[in-house]
Amino acid sequence: MALGLDIGGTGIKAMVVDMTGAIVGRATRNTPASAGVEACLGAIEAAADAALDDAGLRRHHMAGAGVGVPGIVMAEAGIVRTAANLDGWSDVPLRDLLAARLGMPVVLANDANAAALGEARFGAGQGIDALVLLTLGTGIGGGVILNHRIVGGGHGLAGEIGHMRIEMSRPRPCGCGRFGCLEAYAGAKALVKRTHEALAEDWKRHSALHEVAETGSLEAVDVFRLADAGDFLAIRLIDETALALAAGIVNVMHLLDPALILLSGGMTEAGPEFLEKVCSFVRELALEPVAVTPIRYADLGADAGGIGAAALILK
Amino acid sequence: MALGLDIGGTGIKAMVVDMTGAIVGRATRNTPASAGVEACLGAIEAAADAALDDAGLRRHHMAGAGVGVPGIVMAEAGIVRTAANLDGWSDVPLRDLLAARLGMPVVLANDANAAALGEARFGAGQGIDALVLLTLGTGIGGGVILNHRIVGGGHGLAGEIGHMRIEMSRPRPCGCGRFGCLEAYAGAKALVKRTHEALAEDWKRHSALHEVAETGSLEAVDVFRLADAGDFLAIRLIDETALALAAGIVNVMHLLDPALILLSGGMTEAGPEFLEKVCSFVRELALEPVAVTPIRYADLGADAGGIGAAALILK
Repeated sequence: MALGLDIGGTGIKAMVVDMTGAIVGRATRNTPASAGVEACLGAIEAAADAALDDAGLRRHHMAGAGVGVPGIVMAEAGIVRTAANLDGWSDVPLRDLLAARLGMPVVLANDANAAALGEARFGAGQGIDALVLLTLGTGIGGGVILNHRIVGGGHGLAGEIGHMRIEMSRPRPCGCGRFGCLEAYAGAKALVKRTHEALAEDWKRHSALHEVAETGSLEAVDVFRLADAGDFLAIRLIDETALALAAGIVNVMHLLDPALILLSGGMTEAGPEFLEKVCSFVRELALEPVAVTPIRYADLGADAGGIGAAALILK
Repeated sequence: MALGLDIGGTGIKAMVVDMTGAIVGRATRNTPASAGVEACLGAIEAAADAALDDAGLRRHHMAGAGVGVPGIVMAEAGIVRTAANLDGWSDVPLRDLLAARLGMPVVLANDANAAALGEARFGAGQGIDALVLLTLGTGIGGGVILNHRIVGGGHGLAGEIGHMRIEMSRPRPCGCGRFGCLEAYAGAKALVKRTHEALAEDWKRHSALHEVAETGSLEAVDVFRLADAGDFLAIRLIDETALALAAGIVNVMHLLDPALILLSGGMTEAGPEFLEKVCSFVRELALEPVAVTPIRYADLGADAGGIGAAALILK
């Protein structure tokens, strides 16, 4: 058994995971994101112990702890280079700091990379040696698994699928400060922004999205809901989202030709119809031999990161 | 020692390669591309024997033969699915056919993938465990090396970097029948096409490219030459080529974060200035941690494919 620790910008999820990927104990703690590294280490340790308590186990029962970190991780060096939502996290030797506190071996990974490993080992990608996971949330991240292992990259940046560029001539600005990134077209935040832009041009006010927008709380889920209800503008926006996503997926396929593409994150709540839309665009855009590559929603939901972190230890 | 066999649409290069990557014998034969598989096998065998003669060695001195094939290769199955420039090559069990003829173990790879392995083992990427090679010729191909091995892909299609999409809203048509592919912007054939289009709009005839175009033999090398000479239109076309290439390279970096990017093929004859242009665009377009990734021209030139094919055997 191993501890899986999924560090987020707001919460820490700790879980005790057995060799079958089952969670036999779990706990959460708030992330003291603005209180510095030492405070975070304390919260991580507390979450870990609470998960062990929940499982009725103790530290010495664990083979080790895997940690998913929301930032740039140099896994082999055991260092977190940066973590955008954790103040003061710059070149933190998290592996050794945490190993000293927990008294067990610690292995690090980027959180989206860990989620990809979790799905590959115990989720929708079981038995598949090469897969790519795209996490579709506010932004777009992901992870690459080859030969059953995370591809971390020379600078800890592999899997930044949201910042692959799909547009040169009229690129949209991206939250990363660059232009034309996949995330600027297919992320949930970008969908909301694109919706507001489209509404500003829909001067005949044909779309029911206007009413939602006027409440000031328009979210991606509203666009999906109204598309399902047949709203023409919402349908166009979702089609454009699916097309951009398909272009990103096709780029992954043409570079790596993985055996499976998985999608996870909030946007997958849109259900099978959205997935079918994405697949249909992929079949149009991809070279023939890879157009048949299966594309599926991930299985493990919000637990993928923690289970994948534990999988760093469970061989 | 091993045989490296690089099958092209017009010629077959056979070489005897030793453990240091040195070529100790070589020979070439024309590819009977329209005469079917059996004729090609005969030519491959003849090239192999001639290379052995050149080295003063015999078949039993070889540990095996590696073969680079210009098509879609299922390496583990030993099958060539398709090869666009070889008539009748459809699901050919080349590994076993050739092993029977040569009396030695045979391993297959896609030719650009083999070239990437050659550079990784014995060329510009020696000692690097993760690199991506882009072959810049008429079109754009490439190969991905991770953990010192070729990433072939589930359908033999990995490394099709030229068909990663960089443009959605106003995509150029690509030779593959799709739109917006990197190759449609940065391949040598596309550069010539873009030059003719630009000349049609240069109605004041400021550019010296007009004279070359009127001879009917405008080639990519002419555009590079006139850009060096300060021709404004040629400079713009080369800048656009370098920018598109940089976008493709950045997409590779953001997905895989390799330790090294290599460029090979005819376009690298443009020299260090073009490389510097590409690097400068990459630094602008890439996320900071990977913007420092070295980008270099490959070392082995036209021998990379054959040496890499031999490297499939030489462990």
